[in-house]
Amino acid sequence: MTTITSISLKEHFAILKHLVRWTLFVVPIALIIGSIVALFLWLLTTAIHFRFEHKWILFLLPLAGLLIHFIYQYFGKSSEKGNNLIMEEIHQEGAGVPIRMTPIILITTVVTHLFGGSAGREGTAVQIGGSIAALFGRWFKLKGMDMRMILTAGVAAGFGAVFGTPVTGAIFAMEVLTIGRIQYDALIPALIGAVVGDMTVGAWHVSHMHYYIGALPDSPYLLSNIIRPDLLLMGKVIIASAVFGLASFLFAGMVNEIKTICLNVFKFKWMIPVFGGLVIIGLTILMGKPDYLSLGVDAEYPGSITLSSAFQAGGSDTWSWLWKTIYTSITLGTGFKGGEVTPLFYIGATLGNTLSGILHAPVSLFAALGFIAVFAGATNTPLACTFMGVELFGGQHALLFAIACFTAYIFSGHSGIYSSQRIAVPKV
Amino acid sequence: MTTITSISLKEHFAILKHLVRWTLFVVPIALIIGSIVALFLWLLTTAIHFRFEHKWILFLLPLAGLLIHFIYQYFGKSSEKGNNLIMEEIHQEGAGVPIRMTPIILITTVVTHLFGGSAGREGTAVQIGGSIAALFGRWFKLKGMDMRMILTAGVAAGFGAVFGTPVTGAIFAMEVLTIGRIQYDALIPALIGAVVGDMTVGAWHVSHMHYYIGALPDSPYLLSNIIRPDLLLMGKVIIASAVFGLASFLFAGMVNEIKTICLNVFKFKWMIPVFGGLVIIGLTILMGKPDYLSLGVDAEYPGSITLSSAFQAGGSDTWSWLWKTIYTSITLGTGFKGGEVTPLFYIGATLGNTLSGILHAPVSLFAALGFIAVFAGATNTPLACTFMGVELFGGQHALLFAIACFTAYIFSGHSGIYSSQRIAVPKV
Repeated sequence: MTTITSISLKEHFAILKHLVRWTLFVVPIALIIGSIVALFLWLLTTAIHFRFEHKWILFLLPLAGLLIHFIYQYFGKSSEKGNNLIMEEIHQEGAGVPIRMTPIILITTVVTHLFGGSAGREGTAVQIGGSIAALFGRWFKLKGMDMRMILTAGVAAGFGAVFGTPVTGAIFAMEVLTIGRIQYDALIPALIGAVVGDMTVGAWHVSHMHYYIGALPDSPYLLSNIIRPDLLLMGKVIIASAVFGLASFLFAGMVNEIKTICLNVFKFKWMIPVFGGLVIIGLTILMGKPDYLSLGVDAEYPGSITLSSAFQAGGSDTWSWLWKTIYTSITLGTGFKGGEVTPLFYIGATLGNTLSGILHAPVSLFAALGFIAVFAGATNTPLACTFMGVELFGGQHALLFAIACFTAYIFSGHSGIYSSQRIAVPKV
Repeated sequence: MTTITSISLKEHFAILKHLVRWTLFVVPIALIIGSIVALFLWLLTTAIHFRFEHKWILFLLPLAGLLIHFIYQYFGKSSEKGNNLIMEEIHQEGAGVPIRMTPIILITTVVTHLFGGSAGREGTAVQIGGSIAALFGRWFKLKGMDMRMILTAGVAAGFGAVFGTPVTGAIFAMEVLTIGRIQYDALIPALIGAVVGDMTVGAWHVSHMHYYIGALPDSPYLLSNIIRPDLLLMGKVIIASAVFGLASFLFAGMVNEIKTICLNVFKFKWMIPVFGGLVIIGLTILMGKPDYLSLGVDAEYPGSITLSSAFQAGGSDTWSWLWKTIYTSITLGTGFKGGEVTPLFYIGATLGNTLSGILHAPVSLFAALGFIAVFAGATNTPLACTFMGVELFGGQHALLFAIACFTAYIFSGHSGIYSSQRIAVPKV
């Protein structure tokens, strides 16, 4: 008994030391990451609203692409690899994540959105998180596992901060590294990072959009006297989620395909973003509306299709999800910068809206399920996305969130938007 | 593009086949597991209420222990290893899980509760799930990975059914196998199993206890103008959760310690349960009340300390958690049968009640946090328990659930109630 007690004391002392050490490491880093993410979110909103007021700015998109191209060519170095570089460094320590990644990705993302490119935010936040964490890691002289843990905490802080979802941020940072496995090496640092990052954004009074799932209609069917959950609804959720998974698959495939094709077709690399910008302009003229430019969160005009409008009946067109897929894969596939996740939310929510019509299902519920499930399929992070459902929409539909994310995860195949993701356990 | 499409078609066909195949395998199994678990829950409630009406039955506890001992000696064979046998079979296929495990654990658990032993339910449900799944696995001639997947689905079905928490059941079955890692081998089978298992219990009109977290008081403090989340409350949650983790550690340690001591002290093994029964009787006479016998879910008399009463101020005594730890570790450590999880809920909720008084914190919130966190620490399943918080208490406090479960997980050390759990990633 004495031996057990002394072993336990030793173990618990080590645990306490671990907690204190990582709190001291991660809190200052997450405060800085959260602050930069808050600045980024503010700049992004400002840039997008500037374009709303000055519509002609879209015509400069090809020039903006050129600018981004040369910024990366002259200053970018390894930072061009973006999220993948951070994931590779967490898998195995290499040359490190350069601090230049933070200003470069922040500026180029804001430029992309200012001139109307269709992209997201999470890639930018993750890169800010990873490169700030790497800088501090070098200052603290961290090596090996410690360096990988602080990088994970940085990713969690960036993700938690940019979407206002701390638990999701922590789980995402651990889950995104490998397909089919979560390891808890960085459990506590990731949670501290995500919580402090999110709080910091709040402290800067930068707020996030809120979404609501309306009450579900009480629609009795054959078995409802026997079985409490609505089996019919569950069946519809499974069918829709298989489609969500295929949409993830399409998205990831298209971004990669466009990159490959452009590299083969164009003699000079700088031509690619110019071409991309011209296509986006052409598409927008063709469609006659700017709904698929930028983030898709704020409404440019009353009645425009946004993430929020997709939660209401008639709030999106039948093919909105496909248009957003095309716009975003062209934007990101031709060298513009930003994340993929907000477009994935948009694709999912609008596809959910469309499917709710076909399947006679509640529209806000299906928009919410698409929102998280297309993301789950494209990033291969079903648990983080199930949790995102809870953090964004509340816990009432947790079971449907899990069904949607797990199903989409299985149906999206082994591709995904992060090429540095490793496969730990194949899906089938 | 043609190659990609054909690869994709092939991959997606394999995915569809996987889904259909596992649905066909798992649905009938989960229907049976759910039905047996419903029967088990009904028998358990009946047995406990029988003891409420016939208090003298407690004095037969030593005889009941003797009966259980001889049942396992003459009929038990490998099934005595219980949950650990199932976990070992999932890790690596061995001699298999015998079907006799189902009737034996069901009967011995009901006997334990009928005569007043302090134990839980999840172990029984998991063993019912595992052994039914194993039987079907042999009928379907499953081998290797397939057999391990169906066992996992069986565990998920048992767990999801017994607590009415399907998502938690699915995650628990994957998370419990190794400390520090979840692998998604059985993601879809586990979810199908847990959902169908839970639905089946509902279809038999067996319901679960509901718990509520009251509204938190709005208590402004120094930083509340700047930082949205209540930092003071969060600090209290972290302190309490470290204590919850230590309570898990104490519980796991005591069960093992009592087993070891008894094996050394008693010349004949049948003496151990007789001794255990006598100690429980002695303790109950000493305390003058029967509150720590059986599950602790239903109230034996108005004002008795139960899981529900712990959610109210004054609903538990200062040391209730310690008494329940002692009662349960003696019951399970001397050979009585049942699970550990409901006692862990009880220990956590009453400890949360006590700590809420010391820390001036909301009582129902801290009871809820203890409920899931002591369980997280003792089983090393922080993600499943965070999700259990959401499924039982709603999503509003998801962040605090995660903080509580992750912290308790870290503080409980590497021990735990399942000796066959492997360590994938050490905690510190």
